[in-house]
Amino acid sequence: MRVFIAGMDGYLGWSLAQYLAARGHQVAGADLFLRRQWVEEMGSCSATPIVPMKERLAALKESRGLEAKFWEADLRDYSVVERIFKEFHPDAVVHLGECPSAPYSMVDVHHATFVQVNNVVSTFNLMFAIRDLQPEAHLLKLGTMGEYGTPNVDIPEGFFEIEYRGRRDRMPFPRQPGSFYHLSKVHGSNNIMFACKVWKLRATDVMQGVVFGTRIDEMGSDERLLTRLDFDESFGTAINRFCCQAVIGHPLTPFGRGHQKRGFLPLRDSMQCLTLALENPAQPGEYRVFNQFEEVYDLTELAEKVRRVAEQLGLKVEIHNLENPRKEMEEHYYKPDHQNLRDLGYKPTHDVEAEMKIMLADLMKYRDRIEGKREVLIPKIRWDGTSHKVEYLSGQAVGA
Amino acid sequence: MRVFIAGMDGYLGWSLAQYLAARGHQVAGADLFLRRQWVEEMGSCSATPIVPMKERLAALKESRGLEAKFWEADLRDYSVVERIFKEFHPDAVVHLGECPSAPYSMVDVHHATFVQVNNVVSTFNLMFAIRDLQPEAHLLKLGTMGEYGTPNVDIPEGFFEIEYRGRRDRMPFPRQPGSFYHLSKVHGSNNIMFACKVWKLRATDVMQGVVFGTRIDEMGSDERLLTRLDFDESFGTAINRFCCQAVIGHPLTPFGRGHQKRGFLPLRDSMQCLTLALENPAQPGEYRVFNQFEEVYDLTELAEKVRRVAEQLGLKVEIHNLENPRKEMEEHYYKPDHQNLRDLGYKPTHDVEAEMKIMLADLMKYRDRIEGKREVLIPKIRWDGTSHKVEYLSGQAVGA
Repeated sequence: MRVFIAGMDGYLGWSLAQYLAARGHQVAGADLFLRRQWVEEMGSCSATPIVPMKERLAALKESRGLEAKFWEADLRDYSVVERIFKEFHPDAVVHLGECPSAPYSMVDVHHATFVQVNNVVSTFNLMFAIRDLQPEAHLLKLGTMGEYGTPNVDIPEGFFEIEYRGRRDRMPFPRQPGSFYHLSKVHGSNNIMFACKVWKLRATDVMQGVVFGTRIDEMGSDERLLTRLDFDESFGTAINRFCCQAVIGHPLTPFGRGHQKRGFLPLRDSMQCLTLALENPAQPGEYRVFNQFEEVYDLTELAEKVRRVAEQLGLKVEIHNLENPRKEMEEHYYKPDHQNLRDLGYKPTHDVEAEMKIMLADLMKYRDRIEGKREVLIPKIRWDGTSHKVEYLSGQAVGA
Repeated sequence: MRVFIAGMDGYLGWSLAQYLAARGHQVAGADLFLRRQWVEEMGSCSATPIVPMKERLAALKESRGLEAKFWEADLRDYSVVERIFKEFHPDAVVHLGECPSAPYSMVDVHHATFVQVNNVVSTFNLMFAIRDLQPEAHLLKLGTMGEYGTPNVDIPEGFFEIEYRGRRDRMPFPRQPGSFYHLSKVHGSNNIMFACKVWKLRATDVMQGVVFGTRIDEMGSDERLLTRLDFDESFGTAINRFCCQAVIGHPLTPFGRGHQKRGFLPLRDSMQCLTLALENPAQPGEYRVFNQFEEVYDLTELAEKVRRVAEQLGLKVEIHNLENPRKEMEEHYYKPDHQNLRDLGYKPTHDVEAEMKIMLADLMKYRDRIEGKREVLIPKIRWDGTSHKVEYLSGQAVGA
């Protein structure tokens, strides 16, 4: 299958390129390397050393004998997307080319606008290029479980059947996202759902949980094949940040009371799931939603797990809760379905603790890189529009 | 009250400026005159003659002794919005500055992108300017009943209480909009709903039905005070288009089987409703949704009404259904609530037929203007992305 990956230089994008190439698919991708710039803007860097795309591709060839085509390209420009589609003729298009950060979208009006325009426009361009140039191509769009928010009822996979005032209908499940970034994903989902209806586009919209992990097996021991791993407040996600904190002896810092629940998934299983979706595409006109995560934990449970695993590796770890810079529920019901991918054959490979162990071992090699950017571990960007370092909560240290 | 109107040169904007000024409010507005360009792009013009804003303001002064402040300004530029807010200090901000056309948004990728970016970014700029400069100001955002689509259950005003798998929650009612324009309104609604939650913004989101009519009493007999009235496929709405067709002896052209139901409201009652919302603002943190329409009809009933009223005025009218260029349900359930505005004191003044009579009399004066653009009455823009004139349906003529 010919798979085009938008955002091939990113955390998921570079992993997926290798995963798919190893399975014999023809892979091509594009990236404008904005993620590298955004993380720099946050005063941070990837915990894992990452080489330029040219070296990544050379390493892929040397170490694995695999090839991938690449364009440094701005996918917000439709003529660019057209040119790529006319050259590559993708059977599937994976959209990982969005700005994926909630805090980044909350900085100010310019960041909010940038994130939504970037994400909506790149999605539009891919949708229209499929319609006009590759109408049979399957669009695999990365969304987030955060599109749903934390309602007081079970979360189905995209749609639910309801009775209201004595009548019944199957409707999209209401989305209650918690940042302008999450909203941009909802906008994209809504645009795609509509395109499936009117153009018979085939699409899979992946509501992904929080992904963590430093590697997939396909990266082997060639350091040039490592994917990025961020730990700043904007581009680092919960487990990844906790693990980076653990290896440098920084307290683990759940926000607020730390009872926010989320679904989690190791990077390798994210690759498995995305590939299952690609190898079993949606039908023409079908808009399919997959909730993609395995285990649900609250942030305190996660911090405890990181501590337990880190201690097995000889690290000394404290947990110290921080004031919550976000506006979110800290105690809530959370029960999302996640059956669709299992029905396609998805089998979890590593549980959270097993993956954390691999991850911590990897990260210990890069302690100095993280230590050098230690100050980015405490957030500043607040949901109320102000920006100043959040404080530790007194009397909230858990097992410190 | 100091009211800022984004989009003051438009159909609703210019009417509202006069309506509010006549009630003693201090009115200011901005416009980039894009609507005039878009209608030209459609090969059309306003059925009513419209003078430049400078002359409009002069007429307002001469005929009514009223003033309004105006900026020719691009509200997609945050620094422009900032400058206006620092000068005018609005107590209320009415956002009528979006591109309001479903067909226009369906032309191609460039139009779809333009409409969504224009609408999302201008809304963001107004939201952020309120937060940062006028935090007590009330945002009145014009949405559309089209945000809901046509579900098989009653449509509440924004939110509904549901039971799902034995648990209860109050949630946003799912939106199923029918074009990229309608989607842009949903994106805006979602962004505002979130801002109310995290910033305590106060907002009223008006899900407006299809507005029709040539005038409000405040325009009197000064032709320079007339608002625009469009009849092309993109910017003309159902009743307005039917009335324009009637006065030049063109068949009235419901799309498809013509049983699509919509809610309708005369221009003067739209002004009454918007003003009620402004004079009874939402509370800090409140995101309030008003379904704003009065009567529900299907397109065939409407065409019949236009014919009946037109015949009273001595016009000979045929109804001839057209192939439907849109993808929409042509037979469906439709029962939206509309109680919130009544609770604020809204009282319908003119029923559909009474208003049509006033309108047809007005439009008969401008027959030549409409006749000169006769070809724009048959649509070309199709929801499947192609563009060619739609055909009359054979055997579908209703009472022709």
